[in-house]
Amino acid sequence: MKNDFEAVVAAIAPVDQTLSKAGQAHLDDLTKPQGSLGRLEDLALQMYLVQEGGPLSSDPMRIYTVAGDHGVNAEGVSVYPQEVTRQMVLNFLNGGAGINVLAETVGAQLYVVDAGCCGSTFDEHPSLIQAKVAPGTANLAVGPAMTQEQCLQALMLGVSLADRAHADGVKVLGTGEMGISNTTPSTALYCAYLGLKPEAMTGLGTGLDADGVSAKAKVIYKGLEANKAVVESGDALDILTALGGLEIAALAGLILGGAKNRQLICVDGFISTAAYLAAWKLCPAVKEYCIISHSSAEGGHVSAVKAMGLNPYLDLGFRLGEGTGAACAMFLVRSAVNMFNNMATFSDAGVSEAE
Amino acid sequence: MKNDFEAVVAAIAPVDQTLSKAGQAHLDDLTKPQGSLGRLEDLALQMYLVQEGGPLSSDPMRIYTVAGDHGVNAEGVSVYPQEVTRQMVLNFLNGGAGINVLAETVGAQLYVVDAGCCGSTFDEHPSLIQAKVAPGTANLAVGPAMTQEQCLQALMLGVSLADRAHADGVKVLGTGEMGISNTTPSTALYCAYLGLKPEAMTGLGTGLDADGVSAKAKVIYKGLEANKAVVESGDALDILTALGGLEIAALAGLILGGAKNRQLICVDGFISTAAYLAAWKLCPAVKEYCIISHSSAEGGHVSAVKAMGLNPYLDLGFRLGEGTGAACAMFLVRSAVNMFNNMATFSDAGVSEAE
Repeated sequence: MKNDFEAVVAAIAPVDQTLSKAGQAHLDDLTKPQGSLGRLEDLALQMYLVQEGGPLSSDPMRIYTVAGDHGVNAEGVSVYPQEVTRQMVLNFLNGGAGINVLAETVGAQLYVVDAGCCGSTFDEHPSLIQAKVAPGTANLAVGPAMTQEQCLQALMLGVSLADRAHADGVKVLGTGEMGISNTTPSTALYCAYLGLKPEAMTGLGTGLDADGVSAKAKVIYKGLEANKAVVESGDALDILTALGGLEIAALAGLILGGAKNRQLICVDGFISTAAYLAAWKLCPAVKEYCIISHSSAEGGHVSAVKAMGLNPYLDLGFRLGEGTGAACAMFLVRSAVNMFNNMATFSDAGVSEAE
Repeated sequence: MKNDFEAVVAAIAPVDQTLSKAGQAHLDDLTKPQGSLGRLEDLALQMYLVQEGGPLSSDPMRIYTVAGDHGVNAEGVSVYPQEVTRQMVLNFLNGGAGINVLAETVGAQLYVVDAGCCGSTFDEHPSLIQAKVAPGTANLAVGPAMTQEQCLQALMLGVSLADRAHADGVKVLGTGEMGISNTTPSTALYCAYLGLKPEAMTGLGTGLDADGVSAKAKVIYKGLEANKAVVESGDALDILTALGGLEIAALAGLILGGAKNRQLICVDGFISTAAYLAAWKLCPAVKEYCIISHSSAEGGHVSAVKAMGLNPYLDLGFRLGEGTGAACAMFLVRSAVNMFNNMATFSDAGVSEAE
């Protein structure tokens, strides 16, 4: 398993930055003042590098909403009962959740993945991928959340999701997640990878009060202490194993697999960005294939994204997860691609350039 | 003409704020933590008030890109020659401009309107509305840009565009514009209506250098001085007449007409927001029917929007105009409407609520 995973990482190539010049020259020749479509132009240029030239393709797009449960839920870190993870998977399959509506609105395919929900397998459904690594993680507050075997299995699950999408022609991936209590492992990952402090990084999750946030920060401290040797080692895989979650590791694998396949990955919010950070630590070149879709309202996301030197595309106060921010950013990706492909040039349109 | 216009203003009703409670209760019953879709929830609630209840409708959507020329161009306030207004109208009709691509991407109808381009009428085209009030405005740096008759004619043109859309079932309008030098009248309007200073509000337009910006600010001072009595009178219509433009007045009319028809109006960037400000001063209730689609990269837009107490939905560094920012915001409006209409409620989905 570890060899397979290392082969994936080895297959990720940095983009060829020398292509930038040709991509930028095309953007500058389109009938608009240079740079006047702002970040849409940045996005088009990133796509040009990811896809190694134009014309660009944005579709089909696909979101994977990956679900998993967390042993740390036993520490009382969420206002929702753990069974909500499972209930929400059923809601996704019935089409009633936020991500169903937003994926449909943007015209992205949506698959739901059971990477580690508590309980037994779900009934079969055409939009469900059953790939339960374990029925939830262990409690990270007292020891490692996963075994290395489980973490690698979840990572390779994510790679297989990217590969399956690639085989179906998917050009743009979106990361989504569902897992009651999963802001806790995500916060622990930010602290471990970026050296940030739990009290600065811990937020409301789905609705804690101030005492709840304070208690949650203590649980994260406890987890960092319980896994101190791993945190101090700085080993990217070991940290993900000790402090992550099955859906988080699967999303890290999805990001790595997408980068291998030269797919653009729209990273969603707080939890997805923690998965992205793990993927980045495992293979820094992934960042050329990713965008941060939006700035989450979950306290700490802004700090984490800033520490990573990134700039989200949207800031709509979302804190739902599921891939909802990624779905919105996908509209921008399609807009950027269409702009690059379909706008007229100054010479073709007979429009005078600036004097 | 003035009586017709006053009848439009009189027909604009404020939204019924007592409906908020029912709209919010529905949003809070959807399967997500309360408020977790952030500004999409605000947008859904605004639509609920605009449309006087649910279910909500977002489509069809329509963008009007209104073109006009400006006598103040003679003062050297733009790096592009004036004939570009006309060339870009032809580019719009040929489908090669930024707004063509973005309107098509979001699935909005697009009409181009000649409210005041220099030169003769255009050849007929199914997407073109020929309604030239005059072949450009007079030079606002030396006197009023329009006569009151012209300004009223342009306002009523805008109202007729909203009415035409309403007759076609359009629920959401987008404002777009094209007019070489039109950041100058827009800046003059911000200064006159909001008491802001030209040196703080004058930006690069489509690509001036620092000297050009400084010279442009002087032209705006000159215009405010040349129309001093009007500015000091504070009369909303007279200020628009003296310092506006034909496309700007038409967009103000579009906003007023849209509010009268209970359509949501996605206001685009720097120039459109100046038109919105004029409409707001003419009838404060329009603000309940409008959103600021995005924060323009044109210096001064942030200050103007802040002075108006508004919060743009997107911040993508756009400074193209044409309605491009409105097109992107329309995706958010459709997302908000679909969320409101199509998400499951907690009870229907069998999902447990927060403890």
